[in-house]
Amino acid sequence: MDMIKFLHMNGGNGDASYSSNSGLQGAGVMKTKRAIEQAISALCHNFPKTLVMADLGCSSGPNTLLVGSIVINAIAKTSLEMGLEPPEVLINLNDLPTNDFNTIFVALQEIKGNSANGTHHQPSCYFTGVPGSYYGRIFPMKSLNFVHSSYSLHWLSQQPQLEEINKGNIYLASTTPESVSKAHFEQFQKDFFSFLRCRSKEIMAGGRMVLTLAGRTTDDPRDEESNYIWRPLAMAIEEMVYEGLVEEAKFDSFNLPWYNASPKEISNLVRAEGSFTIDQLESFDLQWVAWKRKKDDNDASKLNETDDPRVGLYSDVAKAIRAGVEPLVANHFGEAILDDVFTRYEKILKNRRCNKEYEAVISVTVSLTRKM
Amino acid sequence: MDMIKFLHMNGGNGDASYSSNSGLQGAGVMKTKRAIEQAISALCHNFPKTLVMADLGCSSGPNTLLVGSIVINAIAKTSLEMGLEPPEVLINLNDLPTNDFNTIFVALQEIKGNSANGTHHQPSCYFTGVPGSYYGRIFPMKSLNFVHSSYSLHWLSQQPQLEEINKGNIYLASTTPESVSKAHFEQFQKDFFSFLRCRSKEIMAGGRMVLTLAGRTTDDPRDEESNYIWRPLAMAIEEMVYEGLVEEAKFDSFNLPWYNASPKEISNLVRAEGSFTIDQLESFDLQWVAWKRKKDDNDASKLNETDDPRVGLYSDVAKAIRAGVEPLVANHFGEAILDDVFTRYEKILKNRRCNKEYEAVISVTVSLTRKM
Repeated sequence: MDMIKFLHMNGGNGDASYSSNSGLQGAGVMKTKRAIEQAISALCHNFPKTLVMADLGCSSGPNTLLVGSIVINAIAKTSLEMGLEPPEVLINLNDLPTNDFNTIFVALQEIKGNSANGTHHQPSCYFTGVPGSYYGRIFPMKSLNFVHSSYSLHWLSQQPQLEEINKGNIYLASTTPESVSKAHFEQFQKDFFSFLRCRSKEIMAGGRMVLTLAGRTTDDPRDEESNYIWRPLAMAIEEMVYEGLVEEAKFDSFNLPWYNASPKEISNLVRAEGSFTIDQLESFDLQWVAWKRKKDDNDASKLNETDDPRVGLYSDVAKAIRAGVEPLVANHFGEAILDDVFTRYEKILKNRRCNKEYEAVISVTVSLTRKM
Repeated sequence: MDMIKFLHMNGGNGDASYSSNSGLQGAGVMKTKRAIEQAISALCHNFPKTLVMADLGCSSGPNTLLVGSIVINAIAKTSLEMGLEPPEVLINLNDLPTNDFNTIFVALQEIKGNSANGTHHQPSCYFTGVPGSYYGRIFPMKSLNFVHSSYSLHWLSQQPQLEEINKGNIYLASTTPESVSKAHFEQFQKDFFSFLRCRSKEIMAGGRMVLTLAGRTTDDPRDEESNYIWRPLAMAIEEMVYEGLVEEAKFDSFNLPWYNASPKEISNLVRAEGSFTIDQLESFDLQWVAWKRKKDDNDASKLNETDDPRVGLYSDVAKAIRAGVEPLVANHFGEAILDDVFTRYEKILKNRRCNKEYEAVISVTVSLTRKM
C-alpha cells in the first residue's frame, strides 16, 4: 500500500473531518506548550534575524495553527523580556501531499486578516505549505531553527512485511504473534532513524526539536492499555466477517501501520543516530474526554444533553477515530463499509464493560537539540 | 470587491480548468527562458549552498512547474560548466490563498517520483506553496535569490475607484473616458511600486528577478490592439443587457482589474522605487494559436478536424479566457450567466471580421538585479 496516497486525515471542515474531531490532539499540544516555549526562548537568545520553523504532519484543522500561535507568542514574550525587536518567523506547515492544504491556506488568510502583523513585539509571520513525507528530505540543508511534530510519528511509512497473520487483530494486541510485533518495531526503528537522519541535515547546529507521539509506558508493545482505541475497530470488522459482509482474507491482511514506542526505545534511537542531545523525555496520559466536541447550540439533537462530559463521548470518539483512519480503511475494504464499521465501533464502545482507566491515549514527548 | 477571494484561475484539471487552457502563458514563459537562464547562471557564480527562488502568481497547471524545471536545468548546466556540485534549490510556489494548491502538490509528487533527485549535477529540489498576495510581504527579509512572475502582474490588487462610468466597456477601450484610464494606471503604479518595495526587502543583495506581464507597445493604454481579447467579452455581456438577461447597472459597474503597462511605464517605476537595476527590458507578441489545445485522439467530435491550427481556435480562446476570469464574472453577475456569456464570446469571435494581426497578446519582460 502506498501510504503517501492513503495516510491522511479527512479533509475539509465538515462533521466527518479531522478538523472537527481533533480535540485530543490539541490537548496533547497544550501539554507540551512549556517544552515548545523553552526551545523558542533558547533560540531567541541567539538573536536570529529570522526564526524558521517546521511543523511536520500538521494535518488540516485547528491544531494546524495551534503550534504556530504558541511559537509566535513565545517569540513575542522572549523578545519583550530581552528588550529587543522580535525576529521574523517563517512557519513551514508540512504534511503528505494528499493533506487538505487548500483549507489551511484559506483559514490562514482569515487569521492574518484579524491580527496585527509585526507590531508590539508580535513577530512578522510568513507561512508556507510543504507537501511530502518527513521520512525523506523535505527542506534544504541547515535551513531550520525549530522543528515540531505531534501525533504523527506513530504512523509507519509502510505496512511491515509479516511472516505470520495477525489473526483476529488489526494492531498489536495481546494475542499478536511475537514476529508481527517485532516487524512493527523494526519498521518504526527504520522510520524514526530516517526521520532523525533527515532532520539532522536540515536543522542548523543548536537548533531545537520537540516531538510528541502516541506511545506506551509498558515493556511490551502488545499491551492492551496503549491500544485501547483500536480494539473496537477490530471487533467491528470481525463482526462483519462473521456476517459475511467482509471477506476473512481481507480482514487477515489488514494491519494499521502504527507503533506505540516507549520512552526507552526513543532515547535508544536518538543515541544511535547521534546528531541530537535529549533535553527532556517524558510520557503523559490524555483522557478521551478531550475528544468530546463542544455542544452546538443550534443542534436540536443535543438539546437534552447534560453537561456531563461523558454523555455522547463514545459517539465523538468514534468520529475522531474515523476522521483519522477513514482513508486507510476505505482503501483496503472499500468505501461501502465505512458507515457500518464506525456505527458498530460506537455501539461496541457503549456496550462493552470498559476499563475506564484505559480510556486515555498515552503520549511520549521528547525535546532535542542539534549538536554543534 | 475582495480580489483575494475572486481573483484566481479555475482549479483542477478538467476541461474548464486554467490547467487545461494556459498554453499561451506557457509559450510566454518559453520566450523568456534565456533571461531566466542568464539570471540563474549569474547567481550560481556566487556559489550559494542553497538557491532559494519564488514563482509569484504560479497558478495551478503545467506552467506552475515549467519555470521550476527551467531553473533546475539551468542550475545543472551551470554547475557542470563550473565543475562544481550544484546548489540545492528551494522552489516557493506562490499564489492567492484561493488558488488550487492541492492539485499542484499531488502533481509535484508524481514528478518527484519520476525523476532522480540530486544526481549527475541535477540539484536536490524542495518545494513549498506560499499563499498570499504579492502586493504585500510574503517572505522573510533577505531570504530569496531569485524571483519570477509571469502573466500575473497585469492583475490589479483592487478595482480602481472611478469618477465616471466606463459606459459600454469592461476594460480600457478606445471610448473609455480619460479619467477611467488614469484611475487604472494609478492603481497599477501603486500596485507595481508595492510589489517592488516588498521584493526589495525579501531579495538578497545581488539577487535577480524576471517579470513578464501582458502589456502594450502603444502610448495610450486604451488602444484596441492590446485589449483585443476583452472586446468580445464586453460585447457578449452588452448583448445580454439588451436582451434583459443582465441589468444595465451591473454591466456599468463591472471593470476588469487589469492594466497593460508599457515598457516605459515599467522602467519609470523601477527607477522611482530605486532598489533594482534593469538588466533587460523588452516586449514581444504571442499569437493566440498558442492557446490551441492539443487534439485528443479519443475525442470523436474532433475527428473531422484538419491540422490547421486555426480550426477550433476561437473555441479554445473562449475556454482560455473563461478559465482566467470565470470567478470574477461569476462574483459580479452570478454563476447562472457563465455558460451563456462564454458561448456568446466564442460566437462573436467567429462571426466578426477580425483583424488577424491583433490576435496576439502583447507581453513585456523585465530582468532586474537587487542593488548591493
